[in-house]
Amino acid sequence: MRESPLAAVQRRENDAEHSWHLAMMVVILAEYSDEPIDVGHTVELVLVHDLVEIYAGDTPLYDSAAGVDQREREVIAAGELFALLPNDQARRLRALWDEFEERITPEARFAKAMDRLQPLLLNWMARGGTWRTPGVTADDVRTRKAVIGDASNVLWETGRCLIDEGETRGWSRASSSQP
Amino acid sequence: MRESPLAAVQRRENDAEHSWHLAMMVVILAEYSDEPIDVGHTVELVLVHDLVEIYAGDTPLYDSAAGVDQREREVIAAGELFALLPNDQARRLRALWDEFEERITPEARFAKAMDRLQPLLLNWMARGGTWRTPGVTADDVRTRKAVIGDASNVLWETGRCLIDEGETRGWSRASSSQP
Repeated sequence: MRESPLAAVQRRENDAEHSWHLAMMVVILAEYSDEPIDVGHTVELVLVHDLVEIYAGDTPLYDSAAGVDQREREVIAAGELFALLPNDQARRLRALWDEFEERITPEARFAKAMDRLQPLLLNWMARGGTWRTPGVTADDVRTRKAVIGDASNVLWETGRCLIDEGETRGWSRASSSQP
Repeated sequence: MRESPLAAVQRRENDAEHSWHLAMMVVILAEYSDEPIDVGHTVELVLVHDLVEIYAGDTPLYDSAAGVDQREREVIAAGELFALLPNDQARRLRALWDEFEERITPEARFAKAMDRLQPLLLNWMARGGTWRTPGVTADDVRTRKAVIGDASNVLWETGRCLIDEGETRGWSRASSSQP
């Protein structure tokens, strides 16, 4: 289970649902990538990336403590997970995971952007969601989501509007209220 | 919600979970296709195909009554669903859906095979699942699943072994017990 609340039912989403949503978003939103991307390859990147998160456990975006050993936990998980596969497939999936993590290719940057944009949409539809995590401000949300702009100016502009609206409506803690 | 029971939790699967599972199976099992296939394109086919099923309602494979108007319901659903998108995207997704339905390309045949293989795996892991639908025999299962062989001899051979095992173990109704 992840932290994000779903839009249509009163529960949090699970990893399969999240992963499906990302894949679907790649198919629909690829045209907004600032650089041309291979849709199929980008879908593979989001699918494989999430496998490792399922195995390593979800790391809530606004939980700095859980973030400390995230990379370490995920590297171990990736090693164990891909070792379940025949060697050639293990190498292929590991290469996809590394590509996502390194964010050097346009496909990896877009995959990462979808992974950050999707919870933003869910939080907006839930009128807050994990934006209401204690101690989190709208500026924290902006900081964590800015990576969307590395893949798509249009989508980051849209995302920023939703964060702004969330702050105005009180769905996240106004940054100006900070001491 | 679909009919298939999940392997790890005591409930039926939902469409997002099913769709994610199919996409993942394409990434892992594409190498068993009898003809070379484009993995990304095949993933797009399974994702878009399932969108229409979500909208039209799930048609259980062993429910002949529900199957009667399935095509009609899905054509209407596809029309309404894709009309929500801008024209260029509507055309693109409709073309993907038509390709899946027509099963002329190797990618469409493999996508269809995954859609039939995945519930077979779930039923086998659940020691019966929807194989236990009243009136359904192991031969009915074989008939509905044979389409897997149009995409992959290896996967259909494996699928047939699991159906055979299910019949032997009493997870489906033995075909020889028919009057």
